[in-house]
Amino acid sequence: MKEFYMKRAIELAEKAVGFVNPDPLVGVVLVKDNRVIGEGYHKEYGAPSAIEEMLSTIKEDIYGSELYINLEPEFDIIVNSGIKKLYIGMLNPDKTKSNIEKFISSGIEVNVGILKEECEELNEIYKHYTLFKTPFVFTKWAMTLDGKLATKTGDSKWISGEESLRFVHHLRQRVAAIMVGENTVRQDNPMLTTRLEGVQISNPLRVILSKYGDISPEANVLKVDSDTKTLIISSINIPEDKEKFLVNKGVQLIKIKEKNNRIEFKDIVKALGEMKIDSLYIEGGSSVLASAFESGIVNKVYAAIAPKIIGGKDAITPVGGIGIERMKDAIVLKNVKHEIVGNDVIFKGYI
Amino acid sequence: MKEFYMKRAIELAEKAVGFVNPDPLVGVVLVKDNRVIGEGYHKEYGAPSAIEEMLSTIKEDIYGSELYINLEPEFDIIVNSGIKKLYIGMLNPDKTKSNIEKFISSGIEVNVGILKEECEELNEIYKHYTLFKTPFVFTKWAMTLDGKLATKTGDSKWISGEESLRFVHHLRQRVAAIMVGENTVRQDNPMLTTRLEGVQISNPLRVILSKYGDISPEANVLKVDSDTKTLIISSINIPEDKEKFLVNKGVQLIKIKEKNNRIEFKDIVKALGEMKIDSLYIEGGSSVLASAFESGIVNKVYAAIAPKIIGGKDAITPVGGIGIERMKDAIVLKNVKHEIVGNDVIFKGYI
Repeated sequence: MKEFYMKRAIELAEKAVGFVNPDPLVGVVLVKDNRVIGEGYHKEYGAPSAIEEMLSTIKEDIYGSELYINLEPEFDIIVNSGIKKLYIGMLNPDKTKSNIEKFISSGIEVNVGILKEECEELNEIYKHYTLFKTPFVFTKWAMTLDGKLATKTGDSKWISGEESLRFVHHLRQRVAAIMVGENTVRQDNPMLTTRLEGVQISNPLRVILSKYGDISPEANVLKVDSDTKTLIISSINIPEDKEKFLVNKGVQLIKIKEKNNRIEFKDIVKALGEMKIDSLYIEGGSSVLASAFESGIVNKVYAAIAPKIIGGKDAITPVGGIGIERMKDAIVLKNVKHEIVGNDVIFKGYI
Repeated sequence: MKEFYMKRAIELAEKAVGFVNPDPLVGVVLVKDNRVIGEGYHKEYGAPSAIEEMLSTIKEDIYGSELYINLEPEFDIIVNSGIKKLYIGMLNPDKTKSNIEKFISSGIEVNVGILKEECEELNEIYKHYTLFKTPFVFTKWAMTLDGKLATKTGDSKWISGEESLRFVHHLRQRVAAIMVGENTVRQDNPMLTTRLEGVQISNPLRVILSKYGDISPEANVLKVDSDTKTLIISSINIPEDKEKFLVNKGVQLIKIKEKNNRIEFKDIVKALGEMKIDSLYIEGGSSVLASAFESGIVNKVYAAIAPKIIGGKDAITPVGGIGIERMKDAIVLKNVKHEIVGNDVIFKGYI
């Protein structure tokens, strides 16, 4: 039953995916005499905590109840509530803010680690951002069974099946920002918005990597409104007219100093972190993904493989760039999981 | 129970994988009063049939027994045996040789189609060769999660995990011939033999595609003995000294007339079919696989994907060549199955 309640807490927390960043996802279940007497979750950034949400709805005496919560709660709120027993999925990633000993010496019984792995994955963004103050970086691509991101002419519509595409939109929902390079804007002219039926959606900030601002006035990513914003990351050497044009379009612009003729990803994630962007989802294309891997800033990889064959030695490969020479130097993903969606397979793994 | 007995017949048939080509794989189970009273399988090319094998071991009266067999048997042997009830997995692929009506009019009860799909897959090689007199063609590659067959320097050791490699050797065991191009010989210097622990192995004929016989004297595929033979397929324009050198090494040579400066795969499979090679397994490299797909001779695809990332726009792609321009013209595999082996995923599908 303990796992059942913690699973429910996770489920509640997940209702706010896309709305809390850079806060954590938190859900709580209050149990008394083997009966759930309260539930709650943190609904959006800056809103009341999951526990406050839950307490505000409770009508009976909580004496003798047990709280299930996926992330270690703050000290004061627990002590003031009168709850005497805690089941915690994972500790506060900021060790200096962990209060386990204080809980215990205040006579509160604490049990840590139920569904720890699930809880850690649920808040992997929060944990990373708390520790490093830079966004947790996902990459994602969809490729054919013969390893191509697109045909030699750049056509990529559509590689993956409909179910995989839906999966991609769920990922977009999860992050604060989504990035592509200017080549992808030129080739695909994507909207980069989240399209999901039946759920409230939040559009992540669209981040376009464009060294000198070479973006067509017709580009969909330049259609900006209060819900769908765009940030361009360029070199400090962007021509003045391009800069003026982009800013007039209503997009935000961050200019970064080039090093060895390129904009370093380390500088990009630092700048994004300062903007409170806790998570970044790099969707392509080939050379942006290559730079991201080369710079070592990628944390988690998603890749969908569809059982199609297109051929072509000049077709586009998912991760381009210079590449390594020896297989023994390959990046080997950890904690690999596979999800079969229709005829496609989605790989998921950590760097 | 019917499925259980048919499964057992398939299991028995599979014991001869690699030894019967171009005969079919056949296993039989004889059941009387819900008791297995006989089993047998076709052990190698030209050996007695599965039914003969089984009958030779039976000590009791077979009156009233039922025969489970994965492939429709010949008429005479059944009639002479006295068996009055047949469970057949699949019909003889050569419709002119199918005897179902004769069985029935001889008073033999016939039931067709138990585990039909499994039986069809078991003898997909036999079926294809019977119908077309050319080998059933498998392709196989192992690639990284970013779609590469090898790094830009050609290094591919090792992309897939040990479990996937074992899977590959099981595939090799199944076919009469295995093919690579001369580039692969130059790059990897493979043995192309079957290495499996704990089972008797049969080495398929090694077929090397080499237009003008440019194969190093040090190549492992030129080490020939009675169990490991090599066939070179070259152009009729192969230089005389190369031809002499290769033949002196003990390899067989087939010379094919070029069309548009290339050796057509259609001519290759025709020549192999005439040599009674019922199955061909193309392992690479990139340009051989591309030609095979372009020519339309591929029947079944295996592809292993390993969760490794190596990058490189000049790294080697599994299927090279010219490639298509529009995604809508992609080859879409049918009856796709996925096998998760360790951290790798193997896709299996039909063209």
